[in-house]
Amino acid sequence: MASPGSGFWSFGAEEGSAAAETPGTARAWCQVAQKFTGGIGNKLCALLYGDAEKPVETGARAAAPGVAEPRPTCTCDKKPCGCQKADVNYAFLHSTDLLPTCNGEITTMSFLQDVVDILLQYVVKSFDRSTKVIDFHYPNELLQEYNWELADQPQTLEEILLNCRTTLKYAIKTGHPRYFNQLSTGLDMVGLAADWLTSAANTNMFTYEIAPVFVLLEYVTLRKMREMVGWPGGCGDGIFSPGGAISNMYAMLIARFKMFPEVKEKGMAAIPRLVAFTSEHSHFSVKKGAAALGIGTDSVILIRCDERGKMIPSDLERRIVEAKQKGFVPFLVSATAGTTVYGAFDPLIAIADICKKYKIWMHVDGAWGGGLLMSRKHKWKLNGVERANSVTWNPHKMMGVPLQCSALLVREEGLMQSCNQMHASYLFQQDKHYDLSYDTGDKALQCGRHVDVFKLWLMWRAKGTTGFEAQIDKCLELAEYLYNKIKNREGYEMVFDGKPQHTNVCFWYIPPSLRGMEDGEERTSRLMKVAPVIKARMMEYGTTMVSYQPLGDKVNFFRMVISNPAATHQDIDFLIDEIERLGQDL
Amino acid sequence: MASPGSGFWSFGAEEGSAAAETPGTARAWCQVAQKFTGGIGNKLCALLYGDAEKPVETGARAAAPGVAEPRPTCTCDKKPCGCQKADVNYAFLHSTDLLPTCNGEITTMSFLQDVVDILLQYVVKSFDRSTKVIDFHYPNELLQEYNWELADQPQTLEEILLNCRTTLKYAIKTGHPRYFNQLSTGLDMVGLAADWLTSAANTNMFTYEIAPVFVLLEYVTLRKMREMVGWPGGCGDGIFSPGGAISNMYAMLIARFKMFPEVKEKGMAAIPRLVAFTSEHSHFSVKKGAAALGIGTDSVILIRCDERGKMIPSDLERRIVEAKQKGFVPFLVSATAGTTVYGAFDPLIAIADICKKYKIWMHVDGAWGGGLLMSRKHKWKLNGVERANSVTWNPHKMMGVPLQCSALLVREEGLMQSCNQMHASYLFQQDKHYDLSYDTGDKALQCGRHVDVFKLWLMWRAKGTTGFEAQIDKCLELAEYLYNKIKNREGYEMVFDGKPQHTNVCFWYIPPSLRGMEDGEERTSRLMKVAPVIKARMMEYGTTMVSYQPLGDKVNFFRMVISNPAATHQDIDFLIDEIERLGQDL
Repeated sequence: MASPGSGFWSFGAEEGSAAAETPGTARAWCQVAQKFTGGIGNKLCALLYGDAEKPVETGARAAAPGVAEPRPTCTCDKKPCGCQKADVNYAFLHSTDLLPTCNGEITTMSFLQDVVDILLQYVVKSFDRSTKVIDFHYPNELLQEYNWELADQPQTLEEILLNCRTTLKYAIKTGHPRYFNQLSTGLDMVGLAADWLTSAANTNMFTYEIAPVFVLLEYVTLRKMREMVGWPGGCGDGIFSPGGAISNMYAMLIARFKMFPEVKEKGMAAIPRLVAFTSEHSHFSVKKGAAALGIGTDSVILIRCDERGKMIPSDLERRIVEAKQKGFVPFLVSATAGTTVYGAFDPLIAIADICKKYKIWMHVDGAWGGGLLMSRKHKWKLNGVERANSVTWNPHKMMGVPLQCSALLVREEGLMQSCNQMHASYLFQQDKHYDLSYDTGDKALQCGRHVDVFKLWLMWRAKGTTGFEAQIDKCLELAEYLYNKIKNREGYEMVFDGKPQHTNVCFWYIPPSLRGMEDGEERTSRLMKVAPVIKARMMEYGTTMVSYQPLGDKVNFFRMVISNPAATHQDIDFLIDEIERLGQDL
Repeated sequence: MASPGSGFWSFGAEEGSAAAETPGTARAWCQVAQKFTGGIGNKLCALLYGDAEKPVETGARAAAPGVAEPRPTCTCDKKPCGCQKADVNYAFLHSTDLLPTCNGEITTMSFLQDVVDILLQYVVKSFDRSTKVIDFHYPNELLQEYNWELADQPQTLEEILLNCRTTLKYAIKTGHPRYFNQLSTGLDMVGLAADWLTSAANTNMFTYEIAPVFVLLEYVTLRKMREMVGWPGGCGDGIFSPGGAISNMYAMLIARFKMFPEVKEKGMAAIPRLVAFTSEHSHFSVKKGAAALGIGTDSVILIRCDERGKMIPSDLERRIVEAKQKGFVPFLVSATAGTTVYGAFDPLIAIADICKKYKIWMHVDGAWGGGLLMSRKHKWKLNGVERANSVTWNPHKMMGVPLQCSALLVREEGLMQSCNQMHASYLFQQDKHYDLSYDTGDKALQCGRHVDVFKLWLMWRAKGTTGFEAQIDKCLELAEYLYNKIKNREGYEMVFDGKPQHTNVCFWYIPPSLRGMEDGEERTSRLMKVAPVIKARMMEYGTTMVSYQPLGDKVNFFRMVISNPAATHQDIDFLIDEIERLGQDL
């Protein structure tokens, strides 16, 4: 099904900006824009008038390209030569005309600049509420309507630019003020700039030798994060890993090694049967990690939660004692600071007491809630985190850092290194001429490791801790606004009572036809279908996106989360209006 | 120690481009450049004349910023308003003046454009042989000379731009034609463009819902890669993972699950003692994976290699039989296609025969050598790979795709999903309105997963398979050129005989003082120190970078690898000259 009212190829047609609808204002703004150097003025004006975005019909169905007309060969021997290359006609150019090709500078700068222009337009549009969050098409439509295949022969740079436009046309605008679908939303401009720089630097975190600045920034940033966790002087260890699931797996790996270091050489066969504990509302990655590490999902004991989704400490203690009586060895409790669905914070102090009593590694999965440590108003929700042995904290969630950016923090220094090191002599030569403690790669599970730190570091410099705080406080305030708006509104039922602790607001929308109905099978089975239908309609209209799911015996409900700094009270109002508009006939 | 001849802050002073040394030519080229729109002309000219890069002295030691002068508040109610924001003075602007701030479009476009200008200059310089590969400083120098700390208060956008310049000043130019230090070198312009787009799209691979195009491109690209491996119709499964080590770990995880699916729930305690086999020249990630998965490094049996670093199949079979006799269960053979140091290709056909005979999962770690599948001339070196059950192939190595881009390919479809899925209902709702087979996230170890496919896909479109082939063939030709140049040259000893199979060329440089010396302890202990000293000097001069290491009983030798498409015969000549210049007095 095509999205309502949009022809398949009409990129931007129904997305006219507010300015394009009011040409007078556009003209005024354009005059201002013209004062800029660097060609920005022209680009901005083109964008305002809506003619910057060429329709993508022409050549979109890229046939296997024929033999392209070759670029006239430069025969002069001057460098840079004076040959006329000024007419950059991408229809006759290929990637082989770009750097490192001899004299490829002009073509390269021109090409990259054109890509950047496409991206800048996309970025500006992303924040424009009159554009769609998504131009939805079903997988088979997208596969059939455009030729995505990889061929033997090259495409021209013109086709490459077209590929970029087409890709963005069907992309989700994750920075859009009305995109609430995931824990990671928003598009931070400094973060984006930092990610672009990271790409241009194109290096690898394993040694200081090839990533001197980034290794130092990882050191500085992890230390700062540990300070915020509350470890004296920011002491300890840590790493940026490819996501919260891997960070949680690291914690499990290190906890196991700490208790039974022989597991590294001898494997699980040489050690007793381990068990880990986490709440029934915790993230699935705890089980995923246990499966991978050879511990087994059955050895992850799920602790009961209260009605708000917080782990019940007495149940934890009971299950620990029970496991010990059965001969199992409890080695890890993974508490959650900010559960995925309810946004609940486990009672960390009580859990820390239990971990201390039974000598169990305490991990805090703060992938989602860790960001609240930046807020003087909200950080009390993580009280006790300073007693953890390890903490997962994903700046790519609540702090709005571009994906991916996840940190694992470990209180004991050196443990990660002992646990994971393999002493590869081709990377970690012991006779280098600099301080080898900066060759941090051997503490990782990975060999090559992407530079994830720079965007966080640069954003932190740009915002300061107080800037992150303001951003996070605002999102929490918006969540409270939403909660207050719907808690007594006709047609809404809250999934749990009380003010949200994080930005998660969980609720059912009850369409008029269900409002008078008694609780029972009929109502439940109809209510179950409401959220999926509204969500599908949201995506087809492309107006907003919010997640839903069932949980335990509760049928599909909406889980609203706000991590997008672009969102305002009006966007929350819009969401509610949209749910009612799309759901009233159900 | 500062690098010779360079003051600490003199960014670019000693790096004047060839053009800057010949202002007449620069002027001529500048005239050509001026014909471009988009401000490129001006930027290029500034670069040519060497004044684009401002020295970083001013404000480099960023004190904790005081209260910045606030931006005049716009009070008009028109959108976009006509207020004079044209004077973008970054000294008075902060990240809060960028989007999504109301009317932040102009400031944002101007800021991002300025970042891009910095990056374009860096990119062009990266390919300029008259610039340094690295402006080396010791960790304590870098930490002390610049304030990298994270503070409560924000920095201005001026300081943020300065941070970007400073970061790049000390970065390794990994695209530089004389950077040979790692298996991943080079900077591809289409790859860079694609990575920039990926950053702007800022999404996550777990569901089609939020990454429709990227999920389809992963499907298309993995199928194509499987075709090239030789699996009929490209059938099978796979995933892009955060690096070769994780890809190899996936293989081990899936192989274990295939043989003993109960391991997922019950853990290693419920299954027999497993053993894996790999060659003594294989990558350390096989052991790292075994340690993590609870198998234990002792259960990774290292098979002997011949003098070229290829696994000896008869030794493999002997060790399999031996392990079985001891009651262990062989579950995986990890053959290597392109070893890290020697670039050796294990005899895959013979290994496949043995795996078939003993019913063992055959994995091929082609992280480094997989790229040769793109070359009609060289792909025979991987003959037998089509019989593997799984293959690791890192396009970020030999194919020059920006980091990170690693694929694991699996012959049996569905196995990854069964092995790793946890059915998280908040992500993988079963009542969505589209074909759920495109929600591929549950087959991953990760939850969130970075979009790594787009840069490979776009590069493949831009080059075609034939373009990758040409690039790879050229690198192998250069390796042979180096081999031929030094094999009989005075002062060189090859680590092993014969033409290189991959681009790895391993050799000792013997300084004049050691040339007459008899083999023995004295010579060995002196030879051991030669490569580290030459390497340290290379880095201090910043002229080139190549790796060295010991291996087994062989003391430190140079491992030259060529994956950088920018390298030419002259760069190989330069490397040899440089080794001799820097090592003649040792």
